Amino acid sequence: MGNIVFVAKEIAGGETRVAASAETVKKMKSFGFDVVVEAGAGAGSRFPDREFEAVGARIGSSADAASADVVLKVRRPSEQEISSYKSGAVVIAIMDPYGNEEAIAALASAGLSAFAMELMPRITRAQSMDVLSSQANLAGYQAVIEAAAVYDRAMPMMMTAAGTVPAAKVFVMGAGVAGLQAIATARRLGAAVSATDVRPAAKEQVASLGAKFIAVEDEEFKAAETAGGYAKEMSADYQGKQAALVAEHIAKQDIVITTALIPGRAAPRLVSRAMLASMKPGAVAVDLAVERGGNIEDVVAGEIADVEGVKVIGFANMPGRVAASASALYAKNLVTFLETMVNKETGSVVVNLDDELVKATMLTYAGDVVHPAFGGAKKGDI
Amino acid sequence: MGNIVFVAKEIAGGETRVAASAETVKKMKSFGFDVVVEAGAGAGSRFPDREFEAVGARIGSSADAASADVVLKVRRPSEQEISSYKSGAVVIAIMDPYGNEEAIAALASAGLSAFAMELMPRITRAQSMDVLSSQANLAGYQAVIEAAAVYDRAMPMMMTAAGTVPAAKVFVMGAGVAGLQAIATARRLGAAVSATDVRPAAKEQVASLGAKFIAVEDEEFKAAETAGGYAKEMSADYQGKQAALVAEHIAKQDIVITTALIPGRAAPRLVSRAMLASMKPGAVAVDLAVERGGNIEDVVAGEIADVEGVKVIGFANMPGRVAASASALYAKNLVTFLETMVNKETGSVVVNLDDELVKATMLTYAGDVVHPAFGGAKKGDI
Repeated sequence: MGNIVFVAKEIAGGETRVAASAETVKKMKSFGFDVVVEAGAGAGSRFPDREFEAVGARIGSSADAASADVVLKVRRPSEQEISSYKSGAVVIAIMDPYGNEEAIAALASAGLSAFAMELMPRITRAQSMDVLSSQANLAGYQAVIEAAAVYDRAMPMMMTAAGTVPAAKVFVMGAGVAGLQAIATARRLGAAVSATDVRPAAKEQVASLGAKFIAVEDEEFKAAETAGGYAKEMSADYQGKQAALVAEHIAKQDIVITTALIPGRAAPRLVSRAMLASMKPGAVAVDLAVERGGNIEDVVAGEIADVEGVKVIGFANMPGRVAASASALYAKNLVTFLETMVNKETGSVVVNLDDELVKATMLTYAGDVVHPAFGGAKKGDI
Repeated sequence: MGNIVFVAKEIAGGETRVAASAETVKKMKSFGFDVVVEAGAGAGSRFPDREFEAVGARIGSSADAASADVVLKVRRPSEQEISSYKSGAVVIAIMDPYGNEEAIAALASAGLSAFAMELMPRITRAQSMDVLSSQANLAGYQAVIEAAAVYDRAMPMMMTAAGTVPAAKVFVMGAGVAGLQAIATARRLGAAVSATDVRPAAKEQVASLGAKFIAVEDEEFKAAETAGGYAKEMSADYQGKQAALVAEHIAKQDIVITTALIPGRAAPRLVSRAMLASMKPGAVAVDLAVERGGNIEDVVAGEIADVEGVKVIGFANMPGRVAASASALYAKNLVTFLETMVNKETGSVVVNLDDELVKATMLTYAGDVVHPAFGGAKKGDI
């Protein structure tokens, strides 16, 4: 008999996503697994129980977690959830480990092998398992849709018999996966788009999408691209010059979308109240970094706040607002990673501690925190 | 001294638009008019009082309506508003006269010359005064934006490392001005778009926007195009055949947008509960005819209703949700019409009763209802 995989219904408020789709259940069945999906797990993502059943899953309850060898989740399990899992089980989720060391320790104490999908290395082999990319892509899309919905003008230039409606001016701050998709979506809608990023490589990407690149292009800027593809924090001097340029630019924009995240750190403050005050009444801002403290001063998580006359959209979990697409891609990321750990002859998961994907993503193993970034390196010292 | 024009602040709930912009105030000043804008009239449209002041308007209060020769509004004035206007004043607005004969009679009793902008004839000369077009255009745009905001998937096909998100299937019912803009906007966002209309001429327009045309193309269909460009009501037999085809088509759609209006009549019922029930969970429908009773069964005005698992968006006044653009175009329509009635030497409005635009739009004059469609023809009989 193969391993039992349990797909949990998310309990965190506002989490509409689910860690499996009919497609990935089918795939897991082909590994030789028995798949149990908690009743209603896919309801927020437009995956009814019957669709999971149709591909061979059994619909169960939270009690079924106790017998699972593998638990698939979107969010890190709560203490209560952890207590229902059996020791030795593999748990895979977006673990949000930074600043949550206690919660990671709890996963270790419970004897779980916990994997953080967002720590997947950015290497070719792992591209199809990259949840940051798959979710950020949708977040960038939805940011523009939400902005357009509250914006009091049309986005495209419209030439009508009664005169011309000008194209909206959209400024995207941070040209990573989310930023590039935001640029592309705003361009689709006909907006006049500009963007900024601290990485020089972004300039070409931004231009290739038809947007204008806004940055202080000094020596530091040119040296700033890091090997990992992430932005490193810039000097105070550079930040000052860039902020001045950006401040001047923002005053002319209708919509600003911020997407700047630095892994493991608070989100950098990019937009101040003064910058918002310089915008026209009716302007809109979207902060995709709100869950890390926000790029925009006084953004309110989960709300559209009026800050200095600007509608500042601070929706947390933007991918969860396109849950059906976000879940489909997340589930695919997850099953692709899971497949690397499957022994198909026995239908069971075998963790190879030497695999670079395991090394990068495994937080806890056999009772210990093992990831070097979260205390794992110090283990031997105790 | 020239005529006094009063731009009223709208009092109807949810009406965010305003009947003038800085551009049109400037224009009216050039006619020799004195322009008084009620304080806060443009607040919902992102036109602050100071912008009107900057182009020579005086900011006043509702009491200033009493001395106005011309009153500009978005919505038909209430009884209370009417009582504050002076006899003989010209009042121009979207009068919504059908079924509101009492309100029209009240305008007559007050001695007002009331003009209904939505009755502007669809002739070349009046194209730039066509409020149905300017407002419907924005309504069609915003319908797609609202649908995209509540839709739980991305609209465009996205090919990612974790697999492909399919393009949303969008079906637009009614290919008038609103429908065509909805098609264009959904296409911009990358959706797979189809559309239907009872007019054969629409087929070519729909195809030219890259959408698929869905209709029972029998003899009646081919004969159905009316000279005015509006849809005439089809036979019960045709409607039955078309409904069957549409029902089959709707079952496969993610998003349905209905835009069917017949002037002076209740909106035709196009989508039944049974059709909604046939759609996938998470599907979205937008009813742009909700103010005329709706094209969709059980649509709720002003709300997103869950009908048979489909999110049915019934926002009234869709143009008012893009108020800044809607007001700019409406104000332009209005001032262009006003200009046809201006004697620039005296800076006053002179109504030429023989002008075809006046004939088409004037509801009341010198104490009487004069428009033939609203009892005007019977005047002599009394």
